[in-house]
Amino acid sequence: MHTFNHYVDQHITQFLDELKSFCAQPSIAATGEGIPEMADLVRETLADLGAEVQLLRLTPDSPPIVYGTLGQGDKTLLIYNHYDVQPADPLELWDSPPFEPTIRDGKIYGRGVSDNKGHIMNRVQAIRAWLETVGPLPFKINWFIEGEEEVGSPHLEAFCMENAHLLRADGCLWEMGNKDEAGRQVLTLGAKGLLYVELSGQSLNGDQHSALGTLAPNAAWRLVWALNSLKAPDETILIDGLMEHVAPPDETDLALLRTIPFEEEKMQANMGIDRWVGGVSGFEALQRHLFQPTCTICGIDGGYTGRGQKTVLPAQARAKVGFRLVPNLTPELVANLLRQHLDRHGFEDIQINILGGEHPGKSDPHADVVQAAVAAAQAQYGEAPVVYPLSPGTGPVWPIAVAHGTPLVSFGSSYRGANLHAPNENLRVDDYIEGIRMMGHFIKSFGAK
Amino acid sequence: MHTFNHYVDQHITQFLDELKSFCAQPSIAATGEGIPEMADLVRETLADLGAEVQLLRLTPDSPPIVYGTLGQGDKTLLIYNHYDVQPADPLELWDSPPFEPTIRDGKIYGRGVSDNKGHIMNRVQAIRAWLETVGPLPFKINWFIEGEEEVGSPHLEAFCMENAHLLRADGCLWEMGNKDEAGRQVLTLGAKGLLYVELSGQSLNGDQHSALGTLAPNAAWRLVWALNSLKAPDETILIDGLMEHVAPPDETDLALLRTIPFEEEKMQANMGIDRWVGGVSGFEALQRHLFQPTCTICGIDGGYTGRGQKTVLPAQARAKVGFRLVPNLTPELVANLLRQHLDRHGFEDIQINILGGEHPGKSDPHADVVQAAVAAAQAQYGEAPVVYPLSPGTGPVWPIAVAHGTPLVSFGSSYRGANLHAPNENLRVDDYIEGIRMMGHFIKSFGAK
Repeated sequence: MHTFNHYVDQHITQFLDELKSFCAQPSIAATGEGIPEMADLVRETLADLGAEVQLLRLTPDSPPIVYGTLGQGDKTLLIYNHYDVQPADPLELWDSPPFEPTIRDGKIYGRGVSDNKGHIMNRVQAIRAWLETVGPLPFKINWFIEGEEEVGSPHLEAFCMENAHLLRADGCLWEMGNKDEAGRQVLTLGAKGLLYVELSGQSLNGDQHSALGTLAPNAAWRLVWALNSLKAPDETILIDGLMEHVAPPDETDLALLRTIPFEEEKMQANMGIDRWVGGVSGFEALQRHLFQPTCTICGIDGGYTGRGQKTVLPAQARAKVGFRLVPNLTPELVANLLRQHLDRHGFEDIQINILGGEHPGKSDPHADVVQAAVAAAQAQYGEAPVVYPLSPGTGPVWPIAVAHGTPLVSFGSSYRGANLHAPNENLRVDDYIEGIRMMGHFIKSFGAK
Repeated sequence: MHTFNHYVDQHITQFLDELKSFCAQPSIAATGEGIPEMADLVRETLADLGAEVQLLRLTPDSPPIVYGTLGQGDKTLLIYNHYDVQPADPLELWDSPPFEPTIRDGKIYGRGVSDNKGHIMNRVQAIRAWLETVGPLPFKINWFIEGEEEVGSPHLEAFCMENAHLLRADGCLWEMGNKDEAGRQVLTLGAKGLLYVELSGQSLNGDQHSALGTLAPNAAWRLVWALNSLKAPDETILIDGLMEHVAPPDETDLALLRTIPFEEEKMQANMGIDRWVGGVSGFEALQRHLFQPTCTICGIDGGYTGRGQKTVLPAQARAKVGFRLVPNLTPELVANLLRQHLDRHGFEDIQINILGGEHPGKSDPHADVVQAAVAAAQAQYGEAPVVYPLSPGTGPVWPIAVAHGTPLVSFGSSYRGANLHAPNENLRVDDYIEGIRMMGHFIKSFGAK
């Protein structure tokens, strides 16, 4: 890797300039701003590496997937990224314009620099350095770069299930990763799934005077009672049958968990609390965080919510409820159990509107792609990475990789202070360059497996 | 009453014109529009009857009370009315402009025509007819006409407690009344009280990503569980100790209840339902409606309530909860029981903000003022009125009358289709004129007691 690293050293300024050009192009999925231009830029960037590139349409109006293939070999690596970004507002909280990337104090500031353009460019530049200094890639790459991740990839699952041939691979490199607070590279091998529903009730054909609270059914009460039946104040999920399906962490998972530094006091202090819910702490809390499902009221409203008093009896009420799903829960299973539970407990009147779903997905830590990432992190940083068997968040790991039997690993050059989705999104310059080098080690390791 | 009735017959056009002038003057307490002009108009109107009139200031900026005294005698009647009205919007739903009173199809349309200006004018015109045709009033009248009833009379209770001398009387004629669907005059002898609170929780120093639902406390869940502890799905109020204080209806109340026609199927059909909550119907439902307290969620909100999904864990949530209070509950008692209950059940984190309170108040059906109203209704309509011992709604009956030992009765010329607080508020012309005649009978009966 000596010539590879020397090449990287010689091209730092160029690499940063390329990254800045990438981030200077807005590509906001929520509004569509700059999406076609960004898709073209990504297409040209992959083509410059020698890739064959297609723009795949999910619907006539949605952002295309940039799909590139490059390299040769018996082995195939799937890379998943996205070229869209979150909206930049509130603009007034940025210290430099979000789409004029700027380096200050060793950090590159700009919308998308960390999530996810820095990670696309890390990989592009590592591949170029490899091609220039080592030779042909030792495996084939199928690179799948979507453009609506930041709005929940609404068309992705159907597309992936119908186009599995585009996704077949021996391993998948997931969109991004970060260092933890102690500076250790974090690898993640999967993600929780999600079922996101709106529960709603209508108890009357219109709001009534609250004097009728003696006799008339109140949609807000119906909703409160239905919600209460789903989870107890001690945080136990009460949906009939749900917890029976939860796969507990296996010995391999637990072994990984034991190596994760879990700085809970720091996390709690940041949130202004001094304990976790459910009476857990330490290893038990970490295990709960990664391997237990959630049932979260994300929003609730009904009746009069303005200033002061209005004595009204609400005819309608709604709650948005998100369930983070661990293996072996699926959105379909949980939606069915939820309906059955509500019916069985007398809440047939509460409607369920499914707003989104993702299957959970978890990879075998012994898979080549994971072991190659572990070796690359060790080679780059001189210490073992922290390996999360599962992310507590959610991404489309199922339709892209796990549903097709592809193990995945996520790593990259972000860090805890990157302000993802927030003003002053940034990436540290040193981390960015180290990310290119680690990707070089990963190409070597995965090629040698 | 022959000359009295003849006088009324001769002055119908004039009476209706006077009512229209009264209603043409906006007097919106919520915005202050027209309040000073209306207070002056009411003052002049009482002065024209020969009353001594003062404008009483509750605060430098709030609508004044118009307080008039007229007549002589050992006996005093207190009359309570209000000259303010609800806002007229949505304006586009009115068939004629709200402040251009119009007679169509035997009804007078205009904001405030029923609530409450038609009732002030009914009484003014009856007193004038009495003075013109019968002679001096057989008792003294203290007339208390406030200007902020439609915004909850925020300054009234303190004023009344400090100025009890203005309110002392042998009986009180309350603001308004109506005929029921069968056309029978309804008398009401009191009103439920109210405690209106906002319950709120803050679980974190800011919203969090919902992936933290495993560990971080969620204000919306805390609120749902706290609310659930207050009332069971069978509608039993669970607040520790509250129901022990509830005074059941006595034999006199029950005797009155038995005479009330309770058209529950019609009420239910209007609301789009086919049963009441709590499994009650018929006499039991009526009893519950008038003599049981309520605990009503009037509004609830927290977290993300926009379109689609946002996977957020809310740091804050709020609910507005109204309690209708029957004898012997008071706002202070219920607020204390609520605080103690929440603390005892582990909800010390839920804050209570008291937004309003009214004591309940109930009169002795045998009181002179009530019996005079019964006799007047019988004389005017040739049948016994329907007597509600208590209204399921709330008004300031306590500070105005009951706290001073004054029995009260409410009657008047409104009806179920009057669209109170709504577009196309109206009063039937025939009811209006009958209301003047009934007031004449009432002056006679109360004077003779």
